[in-house]
Amino acid sequence: MNISVLGAGSWGTALAMVLVGNGHRTTLWARRAGLVDEIRTMGTNHHYLPGVRLPRELSATDDAAEALSGAEMVVYVVPSASMAEVVEATSRWVPHEALLVHAVKGFDPATHRRMSQVILAAHPGAASRVCALTGPSHAEEVARGLPTTLVAAAYSRQTAERVQDALMNATLRVYTNPDVVGAELGGALKNIIALGVGIADGLGYGDNAKAALMTRGLAEISRLGRAMGASPLTFAGLSGVGDLIVTCTSRHSRNFRAGRLLGQGRPLPEVLNEIGMVVEGVTATKAAVEIAAEHGVEMPISRAIYQVLFEGKQAEEAVEDLMGRERGRELEEVARDLIPPDWQRA
Amino acid sequence: MNISVLGAGSWGTALAMVLVGNGHRTTLWARRAGLVDEIRTMGTNHHYLPGVRLPRELSATDDAAEALSGAEMVVYVVPSASMAEVVEATSRWVPHEALLVHAVKGFDPATHRRMSQVILAAHPGAASRVCALTGPSHAEEVARGLPTTLVAAAYSRQTAERVQDALMNATLRVYTNPDVVGAELGGALKNIIALGVGIADGLGYGDNAKAALMTRGLAEISRLGRAMGASPLTFAGLSGVGDLIVTCTSRHSRNFRAGRLLGQGRPLPEVLNEIGMVVEGVTATKAAVEIAAEHGVEMPISRAIYQVLFEGKQAEEAVEDLMGRERGRELEEVARDLIPPDWQRA
Repeated sequence: MNISVLGAGSWGTALAMVLVGNGHRTTLWARRAGLVDEIRTMGTNHHYLPGVRLPRELSATDDAAEALSGAEMVVYVVPSASMAEVVEATSRWVPHEALLVHAVKGFDPATHRRMSQVILAAHPGAASRVCALTGPSHAEEVARGLPTTLVAAAYSRQTAERVQDALMNATLRVYTNPDVVGAELGGALKNIIALGVGIADGLGYGDNAKAALMTRGLAEISRLGRAMGASPLTFAGLSGVGDLIVTCTSRHSRNFRAGRLLGQGRPLPEVLNEIGMVVEGVTATKAAVEIAAEHGVEMPISRAIYQVLFEGKQAEEAVEDLMGRERGRELEEVARDLIPPDWQRA
Repeated sequence: MNISVLGAGSWGTALAMVLVGNGHRTTLWARRAGLVDEIRTMGTNHHYLPGVRLPRELSATDDAAEALSGAEMVVYVVPSASMAEVVEATSRWVPHEALLVHAVKGFDPATHRRMSQVILAAHPGAASRVCALTGPSHAEEVARGLPTTLVAAAYSRQTAERVQDALMNATLRVYTNPDVVGAELGGALKNIIALGVGIADGLGYGDNAKAALMTRGLAEISRLGRAMGASPLTFAGLSGVGDLIVTCTSRHSRNFRAGRLLGQGRPLPEVLNEIGMVVEGVTATKAAVEIAAEHGVEMPISRAIYQVLFEGKQAEEAVEDLMGRERGRELEEVARDLIPPDWQRA
């Protein structure tokens, strides 16, 4: 296939390496001409993938028209905040039958749109060609050929399977999933829980509390997802719990680190200043609380994190509130229809 | 309430501490008179909960008849391999209306029965009084009052809520769940995946592989659970993914440590010798593969671990087999009915 990857960060570059390795004619588009030069002349992307040699067959350009010329598959891998701009600015060069894949975890900050909605706004009528590529994947590990699994979620089975075929190899296994909404929400919302797990760590809590936060956090993400039309089982899969595990167990996660500082009692502006980079979980918490309110869904953990982030609540007090809520029923909250009738009667 | 806890290991003792703290008259039964003496005279259980002071109000005895006299709730917390013997030997002293709770993760080794089935074999007709207490819980953290969540799974909602009420306090939050089969399977089968995650670590694989193993391992546990009548969502909850996270992220887990040695190429007898204690995942793998065969369920990860454990297969080769299987479909394998019709047609 003729494939164009838009965005040469660590994940875009790693995906382009896989595609080249699978024999596809792949062009990587970067906004910065300096990075394109480095890829072309040195065969490296030292800032995003230090120590990794890029394959010689990988083309790079800063000219989007050139990158997209003849593309049968376009893969968007840019920050969620730049997605709308990149999709719009490049739309006129995208060939009419190309698959429109994205590997971006987040919401459009202005509109709270999911990434596939951002694509469809610029490519109306292309729903059957859209695919969300997500799952538990540190780019560095994929670039080094370590075993990894991904999810290709699409409305059209044929589209999902074409993306699956393009990417699968001996160490990268791709699963298809028809639940685009669930796959996108899992990837975008997991960073909230990573913040929460960091907060628990900062408070000196143990493994029980972290496992509880991850599981109950996932339950409320599933609840929101269900209200938005997703399958609750998607969140039990690679784009939900899988991605959550990778994020929460990595000490390098910015969200985890930011949460830990918050748990130690530091205020948000100071924490963001110390991290010095975008902390996606902060934006995602705001988006999730607003989207949940629109859908009338209860998200006690996200709400508690919101209060710590934006309303100056002490982390310890937020945890006390969470533990002291009324008695919980595990399945019922996610899927009332799964409860046996005699349980519902009482 | 008048509560009898049978088994004074770390988890039985920690649960008894919680019950005493909540104002229940609690008696802890231990098989060894020496341990009973220590609890009575020193107020410690130094082998199982080092450094923890037991509350003075906790009674202890090695006389099961005395422990069970007047009990409104019995909590079994013994090794799964001793469960059948303890349940049978004590059954005549259990008061007729007592709740029959167990906090045991495993199968009866001889019959592959779940623990509630073992209870019901000795107490026929007591299904509405049976409850499985499970979830992500290091006993040491509960004994130290760190935040923890548990699941009380019962056929009767009233029973589940009585157990919930008996245990809940400011740092222990209990969720009810009607899915007894799912809650029991999650706790018993998670140790297989912990073995697998250890193997991946021993092979030098990264976070992507571990998250994949945990998520896809959970998917095949859900598949088996569904065939046995469990709800797939239970495995996405505290007794499934929650417990799996606690087990797989703890470096102290015997299953993880055994797996790592296997991943480094050591044979099973040598590994078991080095660990020097029961590795529950080894027994659970055998049970799961046999139960899966009975139900005609495919469990590729458990099967691969079985081959490494019992058939001398190299761990690396087993991973290659797993990565090289035919294309996977994420939702379909767990719940075919969740797939949209146009996906099924293709």
